[in-house]
Amino acid sequence: MPTRIENSTPKQDGFRMPAEFEAQERIWMLWPERCDNWRMGAKPAQKAFADVARAISEFEPVTVGVSARQYANARRILPPEITVVEMSSDDAWVRDCGPTFVVNDKGCVRGIDWAFNAWGGLYDGLYFPWNMDDAVARKICEIAGKDSYATPGFVLEGGSIHVDGQGTVLTTEMCLLSPGRNPDMTKEQIERMLCEYLNCSKVLWIRDGIDPDETNGHIDDVACFTAPGEVACIWTDDPDHPFYTQSHDAYDFLCRQTDARGRALKVHKLCLTKKPVYLEGADTIDAADGTLPRRDGEVSIASYMNFLIVNGGVILPQYGDENDALAIRQVEEMFPDRRVVGVMTREVAFGGGNIHCITQQQPAARG
Amino acid sequence: MPTRIENSTPKQDGFRMPAEFEAQERIWMLWPERCDNWRMGAKPAQKAFADVARAISEFEPVTVGVSARQYANARRILPPEITVVEMSSDDAWVRDCGPTFVVNDKGCVRGIDWAFNAWGGLYDGLYFPWNMDDAVARKICEIAGKDSYATPGFVLEGGSIHVDGQGTVLTTEMCLLSPGRNPDMTKEQIERMLCEYLNCSKVLWIRDGIDPDETNGHIDDVACFTAPGEVACIWTDDPDHPFYTQSHDAYDFLCRQTDARGRALKVHKLCLTKKPVYLEGADTIDAADGTLPRRDGEVSIASYMNFLIVNGGVILPQYGDENDALAIRQVEEMFPDRRVVGVMTREVAFGGGNIHCITQQQPAARG
Repeated sequence: MPTRIENSTPKQDGFRMPAEFEAQERIWMLWPERCDNWRMGAKPAQKAFADVARAISEFEPVTVGVSARQYANARRILPPEITVVEMSSDDAWVRDCGPTFVVNDKGCVRGIDWAFNAWGGLYDGLYFPWNMDDAVARKICEIAGKDSYATPGFVLEGGSIHVDGQGTVLTTEMCLLSPGRNPDMTKEQIERMLCEYLNCSKVLWIRDGIDPDETNGHIDDVACFTAPGEVACIWTDDPDHPFYTQSHDAYDFLCRQTDARGRALKVHKLCLTKKPVYLEGADTIDAADGTLPRRDGEVSIASYMNFLIVNGGVILPQYGDENDALAIRQVEEMFPDRRVVGVMTREVAFGGGNIHCITQQQPAARG
Repeated sequence: MPTRIENSTPKQDGFRMPAEFEAQERIWMLWPERCDNWRMGAKPAQKAFADVARAISEFEPVTVGVSARQYANARRILPPEITVVEMSSDDAWVRDCGPTFVVNDKGCVRGIDWAFNAWGGLYDGLYFPWNMDDAVARKICEIAGKDSYATPGFVLEGGSIHVDGQGTVLTTEMCLLSPGRNPDMTKEQIERMLCEYLNCSKVLWIRDGIDPDETNGHIDDVACFTAPGEVACIWTDDPDHPFYTQSHDAYDFLCRQTDARGRALKVHKLCLTKKPVYLEGADTIDAADGTLPRRDGEVSIASYMNFLIVNGGVILPQYGDENDALAIRQVEEMFPDRRVVGVMTREVAFGGGNIHCITQQQPAARG
């Protein structure tokens, strides 16, 4: 019997967003089916999503939301240990349209239901309409039985923020200050909003992400917290790599920062793919009014950073690239106590994101 | 992470169906929207369903499954303490298409997923197709996180059985032996199936129900267990009442029976409406191929027996009939420790059932 909380904030109520590396209860996903975004009727994407779900389910429970149309098919493809529930959406990026969960120290978990506008609304959003996506956070909270905070009008996607669970937010100016998000708010007002809802006191603003066109530069392709006082950041030594400048700028920025508790950040380098991943087979993606046309040869946002931390593990994108094994080794070094599992998710990158974008963790209750 | 159990039965695994008067965890419902069954775009029915849900939620949690189309509307109409989840169906009779839950004495609850064929399949079913209804039991078990027994091919609706939780099943020949259910099975084979899945040893077969046309005479309009060794049965002294013969036959039959433990049944009389309830406003029900045409003046199956027992209460249909108050008094006498709450559900009767038909209890884990 979850209720909507409209007159308070997580900070006021003693809740905070835990870091992804804290204990989790369950991972939520959505099922891809949109033929104007995914190649070949979304069938290869469905296989990749199922592979990701299966990999996660070795560590903790997974629930996949799927439309009525695709329910039987998803139930058939996904193994029985994965829970499948009906949930319609406009695409399958639960990181961005799903709830951001917060916890207190009394064993309570709640959701934050940000406004969602398909990464830019009528300004530069990726599709129209997005009403079913916008309802996903609430639907997940209903099924999870968690109360949720309404944030009327404040647009935010989960992929645009990372936290250390100890007062620090990591984000990008490119996304949060984009005119498609909250154009009537100043940077300071946005910062106050983040601190109020995530219960933080310091926001680290990296300037640019690596995909200006789709997510307006989500942080979850660029950097994340790996432990208190530690972050990972994308890195390449190849000046011809399309993400060379952004990776160096982000790395240099992070090396100069302290977190909310005053610790200088330890910054781990995480490689990029040796070769950029270029879209192929765009002719099998349906044309549609109001969505970006997809063309063979466009650079896909293929970042190893888009991994998901789970209980005892890390689920890491693999692209069939020369650096796949290096990425696994580097992430293993960042997380010495976790098992790193690579999943081939080139197909998810073709659709515009990766493992972190298609998952949302529900933290464990604590205290 | 519920799983499907295909190679065992509840009896083999030590599970039994508890009586409705045993402790419950939650009530499941579905949301009506089918314009070829409900009057005026299902709007009055939606109000009645919401009234029922609200009445139940005073006693225990309620979850309502609703299609993506109607989600926002249902969420708006239903009060916040009621959980709303997406769940498509072909109509809204969760008693019949939902799972029958069974429990063991070790704290475990499981579902039985009977085959559902819209009350008679291609023989005399009420609509086509019924595939979304048939998936409801599984979807509920997924959300509830309960393993479920598959009963491949065996057709049964929850409204066609009642149990005392102590080895006795109550049902009707009219329904279970109908050619639209399991025509290739003998009465003895069907009995064995019921005993195996409900974990019972005795089946009491009342011959006829009161609605041959729609449910083929479901027991839940005629009689039910009110306590171990006690049943309620419909009754009228008016020989002109359309259900006079069936009520007397059922009453006389029950008075002669003993239950699985050898107790002679105590039979409580429950009145029928003073006047039959006749359908009005059939012209606001959409015409549709493959469904029974609805006509003003047809007798609605308005039975006070179609109540729902909940924790500490009974939710009882009211029809605006002279006998409404008498029905409440009689049910209060049957259940001296429960609060009896009447809900005006004439509109639900117009659609073909009542409170028991539109609800399904998930029993509490015990032991």
